[in-house]
Amino acid sequence: MIRAAIVGASGYSGVELLRLLAGHPHVELLALTSRGHAGREPAELFPNLRGCTLPRFRAPEEAPLADCDVVFFATPNGTAMHQVPALLAAGVRVIDLSADFRLQDISQWSRWYKLDHACPELVGDAVYGLPECNRAAIRRARLVANPGCYATAVQLGLVPLLTAGVVDSQRLIADCKSGVSGAGRKAEIGLLLAEAGDNLRAYNVAGHRHLPEIQASLRAITGQSVGLTFVPHLVPMLRGIHATVYGSLTDAGADVQSLFESHYRGEPFVDVMPRGSHPETRSVRGANHCRIAVHRPQGGDTVVVLVVEDNLVKGAAGQAVQNMNLMFDLPETSGLEAPALLP
Amino acid sequence: MIRAAIVGASGYSGVELLRLLAGHPHVELLALTSRGHAGREPAELFPNLRGCTLPRFRAPEEAPLADCDVVFFATPNGTAMHQVPALLAAGVRVIDLSADFRLQDISQWSRWYKLDHACPELVGDAVYGLPECNRAAIRRARLVANPGCYATAVQLGLVPLLTAGVVDSQRLIADCKSGVSGAGRKAEIGLLLAEAGDNLRAYNVAGHRHLPEIQASLRAITGQSVGLTFVPHLVPMLRGIHATVYGSLTDAGADVQSLFESHYRGEPFVDVMPRGSHPETRSVRGANHCRIAVHRPQGGDTVVVLVVEDNLVKGAAGQAVQNMNLMFDLPETSGLEAPALLP
Amino acid sequence: MIRAAIVGASGYSGVELLRLLAGHPHVELLALTSRGHAGREPAELFPNLRGCTLPRFRAPEEAPLADCDVVFFATPNGTAMHQVPALLAAGVRVIDLSADFRLQDISQWSRWYKLDHACPELVGDAVYGLPECNRAAIRRARLVANPGCYATAVQLGLVPLLTAGVVDSQRLIADCKSGVSGAGRKAEIGLLLAEAGDNLRAYNVAGHRHLPEIQASLRAITGQSVGLTFVPHLVPMLRGIHATVYGSLTDAGADVQSLFESHYRGEPFVDVMPRGSHPETRSVRGANHCRIAVHRPQGGDTVVVLVVEDNLVKGAAGQAVQNMNLMFDLPETSGLEAPALLP
Amino acid sequence: MIRAAIVGASGYSGVELLRLLAGHPHVELLALTSRGHAGREPAELFPNLRGCTLPRFRAPEEAPLADCDVVFFATPNGTAMHQVPALLAAGVRVIDLSADFRLQDISQWSRWYKLDHACPELVGDAVYGLPECNRAAIRRARLVANPGCYATAVQLGLVPLLTAGVVDSQRLIADCKSGVSGAGRKAEIGLLLAEAGDNLRAYNVAGHRHLPEIQASLRAITGQSVGLTFVPHLVPMLRGIHATVYGSLTDAGADVQSLFESHYRGEPFVDVMPRGSHPETRSVRGANHCRIAVHRPQGGDTVVVLVVEDNLVKGAAGQAVQNMNLMFDLPETSGLEAPALLP
Repeated sequence: MIRAAIVGASGYSGVELLRLLAGHPHVELLALTSRGHAGREPAELFPNLRGCTLPRFRAPEEAPLADCDVVFFATPNGTAMHQVPALLAAGVRVIDLSADFRLQDISQWSRWYKLDHACPELVGDAVYGLPECNRAAIRRARLVANPGCYATAVQLGLVPLLTAGVVDSQRLIADCKSGVSGAGRKAEIGLLLAEAGDNLRAYNVAGHRHLPEIQASLRAITGQSVGLTFVPHLVPMLRGIHATVYGSLTDAGADVQSLFESHYRGEPFVDVMPRGSHPETRSVRGANHCRIAVHRPQGGDTVVVLVVEDNLVKGAAGQAVQNMNLMFDLPETSGLEAPALLP
Repeated sequence: MIRAAIVGASGYSGVELLRLLAGHPHVELLALTSRGHAGREPAELFPNLRGCTLPRFRAPEEAPLADCDVVFFATPNGTAMHQVPALLAAGVRVIDLSADFRLQDISQWSRWYKLDHACPELVGDAVYGLPECNRAAIRRARLVANPGCYATAVQLGLVPLLTAGVVDSQRLIADCKSGVSGAGRKAEIGLLLAEAGDNLRAYNVAGHRHLPEIQASLRAITGQSVGLTFVPHLVPMLRGIHATVYGSLTDAGADVQSLFESHYRGEPFVDVMPRGSHPETRSVRGANHCRIAVHRPQGGDTVVVLVVEDNLVKGAAGQAVQNMNLMFDLPETSGLEAPALLP
Repeated sequence: MIRAAIVGASGYSGVELLRLLAGHPHVELLALTSRGHAGREPAELFPNLRGCTLPRFRAPEEAPLADCDVVFFATPNGTAMHQVPALLAAGVRVIDLSADFRLQDISQWSRWYKLDHACPELVGDAVYGLPECNRAAIRRARLVANPGCYATAVQLGLVPLLTAGVVDSQRLIADCKSGVSGAGRKAEIGLLLAEAGDNLRAYNVAGHRHLPEIQASLRAITGQSVGLTFVPHLVPMLRGIHATVYGSLTDAGADVQSLFESHYRGEPFVDVMPRGSHPETRSVRGANHCRIAVHRPQGGDTVVVLVVEDNLVKGAAGQAVQNMNLMFDLPETSGLEAPALLP
Repeated sequence: MIRAAIVGASGYSGVELLRLLAGHPHVELLALTSRGHAGREPAELFPNLRGCTLPRFRAPEEAPLADCDVVFFATPNGTAMHQVPALLAAGVRVIDLSADFRLQDISQWSRWYKLDHACPELVGDAVYGLPECNRAAIRRARLVANPGCYATAVQLGLVPLLTAGVVDSQRLIADCKSGVSGAGRKAEIGLLLAEAGDNLRAYNVAGHRHLPEIQASLRAITGQSVGLTFVPHLVPMLRGIHATVYGSLTDAGADVQSLFESHYRGEPFVDVMPRGSHPETRSVRGANHCRIAVHRPQGGDTVVVLVVEDNLVKGAAGQAVQNMNLMFDLPETSGLEAPALLP
């Protein structure tokens, strides 16, 4: 059994990790930390966990993190970077669901996250945890930077086109729609049901932190810099991201359907749907799958890629478990086989 | 492995059975039948099942139902009764999620369901599939009548009070609220998101078919007839039933909290919450648990029991799997261990 | 034109008052106060008001409240009582949408609201603003205590039965369901869309502040004390209250339909629906109407009254405008004629 | 008073017209027709209208349509074209909310709507009813083709850019999100709350009927043909369209904010919001306003226009009333002044 801990298990990524790891056949949860909730049972915050055998929350300094094989950080940005160095030094492997190690360019990171980085010397060791693009490096990583939810969806939609070189990489558009759990479990007026219910709005059009992450990762994967306009929208649903990605084909003869099918052949969690499909966010509710459909409306040279994922699973906790499976030579789908919940 | 089939797998109880049985460690799905969808893959109707290995839908007469150990009926009312006799004769055990075998009184059944019963001689053999009240009989049953969703919640809330004899059994009230999946997967104007969204209404106040079911079952369990007012309401959510049950205590000294705790001690799927709790429907979303809290507002002699369940799981498909587990001497929780999905 | 001001116009009752008064033909809005938002336009908080000509928010002490004919308080409980005495002394009439003047029994008020009352000597002057029960007194009131949202719905459902003396007044049950705007515009985890969406739960079963209000008002109206169990539930919708009221008929021959029809004949905002109806909350979305249906399930002696209202209109701001219309001899429906928004 | 009738008043555009016209100070509703509901009161279908004085539904041939000043068609596509010729011949003016007269190119119309046109000779007389682009022609029109909901939002977002010539007109993208009422009041599985709730999906990516309408109208307005990719999405909300429009600026120095402000200066129903704004669909719920914000993310040459409208008001019934006001020399905002409903 892999001994695991979760630091900061009181947010939505945290409770989703708890749900997934509670059912994982090869994981033993050694500790959960939460400074604000030390001493409480997870089920007091998250009544879906009543009846699960889980450790109580502890203050981070009282938890046996150094005895673990792996520690997950589901903390707000700017927290993991303070605790990761000691854990790595103790030989513990780390999967960070926050943004602390997602950008290799430290000054860019500081600009977008408005913080000084606490351990810039470790950023270079971090492996970007998108298995479909980075599987080999993840297997041997000691520190994985788990991608952002939007970043996962947008990259899975763009990478086949960019690596095949069939789109104009300077004029890409990603129009993304997210359920409210993506904003986290925080008491903000704008996230109230009475405000966000029966309502839709764009936000952060001027710039969202997942934009530099996507651009840096795509540059690493494809060797070229991309021009991307990324507009996120808040949608009145609990879970789910729908990315609608637009590109201009440079090769009018490209068979984009075949391109996606061959690119993702054998991937356990990427489902390229048949021609003409329209994936639904509910088809991945609670599951680690990403479903993709590719269109060329009216046969023109604009390619439209429709990508859905559950922002808390493939967009966060599920991808973290997938990364752990890779890091510890488990079957990649271990603990992630349950179908989505529908309706 | 238990060889199982589902007749009528194209509704919400059906897809939920598919989801649960696809992950059940001791079940092999031999056949799915649907006259309207013969030849199609389940995933064409229910995209959450893409990637699951499942048989195609077949017409009922072409499916090897007689080769199964158990057949589930997830059909509209009035269908199972035509096919069950032959299956029982062939030695197949049957779990009927519809209402065909829920009422022992045939003439009452005909009055509420507006049909003649096709096999009245078998109704006496049917065992009412509420494990918390009827476990021994279910184990040896060849035909289980799986209870209605409201009926399950209301009875789990009432039985401890009635068997202890601490409430006036003639003045009970069950005010129930259900998500829309309880109404089934049928194209009706009143169930459109544009009609039922951001809206709440009662329905069938004059009489709902679960009323005679509850009354008959409670009479069987407690040996007394009960006077019950049952009012269902349609709520703008996908899943979940919240039953709010009111009774007049005849024993002012009754400790209702202890009563419920001792009544349900050891039950794997009934969670009596601590004093003062308010269970939430989302805490059982996708799970087979029923959570209960008991109150005596202002310490008076009115007892208020709050009961939540997922109408498609403990209220339908999950309870059916629980019954199957009992019938085949499997661990009662087999295939039903996953925590609820929250948020 | 009646010169009006709103104190505390930054909550949901406040914005709803703004919407209604902006379209009222006989009202001129002189001032809006909000300490936290002084200097801002209402439309900055509430973008539905963009384009309406409205005064900016001011600090209360800088607003010409004493020059008004009427001042509405849409403040949290415990605020109005500090400002009302000076306004009344200046000859201004006051309509308080908060709870400060709803209970005549000061010690009871202090117990439920956990505050000392700042002007107990004025409580006796306050008129409870339920026009259907109290119209004459409201017309000449200088201080109106606008009823609570639940209190309005429950009383409109109970008063005809109690005044006719046809129910057991000691065993009444009000099972109430409310949309989330009833909880106010405050940043609480439990009101997030990610928490309250696709979810239903009871709350405050042990005791809710509208209970003593209902009991006191019913005693004043009917001359008898009532025994009432009141259980509120939070429902995933924006607006709307559905009260399901249960009573035991003491007169088995009572024609409850006729009783309600004659009781509310001529009332502009109470709609007694035809026999067998099930009112929907959406049928009053944004409107000041309350719709009621009365049932006797299976012809028994339990009467079930279904009552719907918009918690922000008939349950708050609309009723306040109705009260203002009465106080200033305007047509009672002035500014309140618009039909509900459906879908 | 203008004598008006509505043909086909039993859908969502119909009930919204009823709501708006019931409160219009200069309109008298002479007749409502609905073949399927002849003899019924509108309030039987739409309980929000209880208490409004409205004519009963009649069969079309029994309604005094020829006595009206104006007849609105809120019928499915392919119906109005059969009745309009006789009405025009009788001197009645017509506002058609369906698509029958939206495309001047008959063969294109037949291709997209899969019908032969019943009166091609009248199509040339039809005026496209987008007041912000076509006000003078609407004033004198006898037949107005009321625009589609998406078409209205997309055009209001594109016209300022195209008429100013500052974007590449061949590479435009409109990513649109609509609430479910846009799909109409029809009993379809995919529109059930249990299917469309907590879910998001694109549809008709291969081609939607509003695409040729937008292209034809933009060609008429700007004199140039445009290349547009239009992708609609279904969102779990009742009302509201959010169009996110992307274009490539050909003039890097263009001040798009000023451009929009000057283009729409004086327009009563188009609200250009301040720089940096993100309009919300709820800010126009029930109102005829369209709110627009313009962005240039990171100061680049991609312009992003955010447009919100209520699909049933500015996208259908409200725009029809606005057109009627113009045709009959009433104030353009008559009957359309009420602020949006929020929350």
